[in-house]
Amino acid sequence: MSISPDFMRRIAAAAAAETLPRFRQQGEVMNKHKAGFDPVTEADRAAEQAIRALIRAEFPDHGIMGEEFDTEGEDKTHLWVIDPIDGTRAFISGLPLWGTLVGFTVAGKAVAGLMSQPFTGELYYANETGAFYEGPGGARRLAARRTTELSLATLCTTSPALFDGRRRRLYDRVEAAVRLPRYGTDCYAYAMVAAGHVDLVIECDLKPHDIAALIPIVEKAGGVMTTWDGNSAEKGGDIVAAATPELHARAMEFLRG
Amino acid sequence: MSISPDFMRRIAAAAAAETLPRFRQQGEVMNKHKAGFDPVTEADRAAEQAIRALIRAEFPDHGIMGEEFDTEGEDKTHLWVIDPIDGTRAFISGLPLWGTLVGFTVAGKAVAGLMSQPFTGELYYANETGAFYEGPGGARRLAARRTTELSLATLCTTSPALFDGRRRRLYDRVEAAVRLPRYGTDCYAYAMVAAGHVDLVIECDLKPHDIAALIPIVEKAGGVMTTWDGNSAEKGGDIVAAATPELHARAMEFLRG
Repeated sequence: MSISPDFMRRIAAAAAAETLPRFRQQGEVMNKHKAGFDPVTEADRAAEQAIRALIRAEFPDHGIMGEEFDTEGEDKTHLWVIDPIDGTRAFISGLPLWGTLVGFTVAGKAVAGLMSQPFTGELYYANETGAFYEGPGGARRLAARRTTELSLATLCTTSPALFDGRRRRLYDRVEAAVRLPRYGTDCYAYAMVAAGHVDLVIECDLKPHDIAALIPIVEKAGGVMTTWDGNSAEKGGDIVAAATPELHARAMEFLRG
Repeated sequence: MSISPDFMRRIAAAAAAETLPRFRQQGEVMNKHKAGFDPVTEADRAAEQAIRALIRAEFPDHGIMGEEFDTEGEDKTHLWVIDPIDGTRAFISGLPLWGTLVGFTVAGKAVAGLMSQPFTGELYYANETGAFYEGPGGARRLAARRTTELSLATLCTTSPALFDGRRRRLYDRVEAAVRLPRYGTDCYAYAMVAAGHVDLVIECDLKPHDIAALIPIVEKAGGVMTTWDGNSAEKGGDIVAAATPELHARAMEFLRG
């Protein structure tokens, strides 16, 4: 079954209606620890409820798994996987690199998904027909860059401090081999791989809801996404996304240890 | 003399007309090393020329210093300081955290300036009447957050790898003391301090054009900006920007070594 662009846009709009009014409203919250008022948690929960309501209405037989609430219909073949705000640290820092992630899996395989950034007005999505961008500059098909060598690659990770000892050493070997490393990117980095602006993303300890939406976006744009062990990325864990199979293989030579 | 909001907007628009059409047009350029075609260099030079033309027309007696071309009238009391694209690495990675910086100094003191991000449509500027934001969500006065303790602070830096040995050790002491560090931010981080989303920025080896525009934006929003030695920031070097004088003092206890 195919997920329509219109449904992708409706999900992005419903999430934006809950997240955007609360973005940059953190103000003194971090300092005051006011009980019961936390814009990012409010935005996270309200956006997930809005997304779940849309999915339930359109696909009543599907299961839904999200970061904030209990899974509905975990045993269903068709399962939606939601992270209403990926990059909550970017969100609370005012930086527009967070995103709403909604993935669609069939028998455990991610076949469609979207990443939306409502402050910039960007929507990246994929379904069985391909991977697409809508936002400033117009609409277009996504295509990863044809980079095959680490020495020509731009590499993104959210923070190298997130890797512990052994994994930090493996990651550092890749970073030392690339042309340009960039930090602080969260989900946005995977969209940049699909769009052909960045070549490689390496991260660790991801949950299924951090990654399910992004797999079809990267893959349908020509990229490759697996765990550091070379297994499928749907279950999360330590993840590498690459613009080409060749570049993925080069990174894996380091990451397999 | 005061620099009008209208002139700030005209500068931002003139720069955007050169930078935005070239943003995310890098494509295969990084791989192919095509001679004579480099969107970021083209954008940098064209934007600086457009900004210089506006300044010359409006203030023919002022000096102009920029990243890309020779200084005009370096000995003038009134001197404009331009970085057409601060964050070229963000620019070539598709990340909307780069900005156009234009500062205005009188006898070496930065008294007005702007940072514009055309992809998000944001303009942050300051003149003698205050510091202001215009963009998504509307227009408003900028006010830094009243954070006074490192343990409650969000700290931004572009990359900790930019600090060499001794400075890295000093920086790491601050990072270890804060609540949340964020990387990959370039000029955008100073705007976030002025807007009250981030509390502290620490960077090293900045040029005058990296920083002159940002000083009045941070200061007029209530923040403090100096070198790690406590000297004025206008000449660049190792820089600390803080949301409050108290937080600045806490950071300086570490950074003075």
